[in-house]
Amino acid sequence: MAELFDLIQNRRSVRKYENKQIPENLLNQVLEAGRWAPSWHNFQCWEVVVVKDQTIKKKLQDAMPPKGNPSSKAIIQAPVVLGVCAKMESSGYFKGASTTKFGDWMMFDLGLFTQNICLTAHDLGLGTVIVGLYNHDQAKTAIDVPAGYELVVLIPLGYPAKQSTAPPRKQIKEFVHENTF
Amino acid sequence: MAELFDLIQNRRSVRKYENKQIPENLLNQVLEAGRWAPSWHNFQCWEVVVVKDQTIKKKLQDAMPPKGNPSSKAIIQAPVVLGVCAKMESSGYFKGASTTKFGDWMMFDLGLFTQNICLTAHDLGLGTVIVGLYNHDQAKTAIDVPAGYELVVLIPLGYPAKQSTAPPRKQIKEFVHENTF
Repeated sequence: MAELFDLIQNRRSVRKYENKQIPENLLNQVLEAGRWAPSWHNFQCWEVVVVKDQTIKKKLQDAMPPKGNPSSKAIIQAPVVLGVCAKMESSGYFKGASTTKFGDWMMFDLGLFTQNICLTAHDLGLGTVIVGLYNHDQAKTAIDVPAGYELVVLIPLGYPAKQSTAPPRKQIKEFVHENTF
Repeated sequence: MAELFDLIQNRRSVRKYENKQIPENLLNQVLEAGRWAPSWHNFQCWEVVVVKDQTIKKKLQDAMPPKGNPSSKAIIQAPVVLGVCAKMESSGYFKGASTTKFGDWMMFDLGLFTQNICLTAHDLGLGTVIVGLYNHDQAKTAIDVPAGYELVVLIPLGYPAKQSTAPPRKQIKEFVHENTF
């Protein structure tokens, strides 16, 4: 398999997928990778809805913004869409109270979880794209997310039909500071 | 090098460090890994303060909660502490306005970034721990984080003095749902 840095550098957002199912064992490996993410106090606030049903995927697509989302078609094309949700008031909380100025840390923990998912998918020859711009309440309804939980990102998952090029990154010196900002 | 899943599964939170500097090229590899993280619209909202100065590390330690943080000693012991900051109102925003119900997505993007950092450090034989529980405003002052930016996590980085065991994880079936939550 590839070296970690190659995986990190060559993972791309995939927005076009082959019309091909993914084996259950690969899907499981992707979910296992998420399972081992670190989290606030090991609370593991994540919940994942694995959507394969085309009718439900259509409802998720309907929640994309009116002007569209570049990943809108991927919701339908990809054989699987992962709806990554979080239990609210868990990460960053202690005995029901927020412990830092940032309140709920669910977004941070889902970021850790999501990166494990995306790197592992790429390692297995699968593509992903992290979709965050849509009407979250509408999409929540489509997959019956209960009160006390939020749906945060949708991640289409499947075989890439097209490789895209890497958007440029800032140089190290543009975001790294020594001892003080 | 190890396979990705081994790295994901065997990365631990390291709270005891050897009294040993880390080579600059390893530190650079860790930062490069962060650099290639995905982010909202490729905005790359992250900024990193690499703290090696003992006086500044002591000030960061002073920002830990009065009852302590299990990672408090690591701030001093580890040769390097990464102060992972974010530009506010960038991730999740478009033309100065928030685009989703979650407002600022900086926490999510820093999660993606942090996981690249922690996995790469582990791959290089280095340990990390993600420290989120402290007085963020006090720590911000210690490293001169300007207005418009937030310091979110501190990540001690160094050679592990002790391997810890993995805290248990939920089973897949405990957090994965099919088609609907």
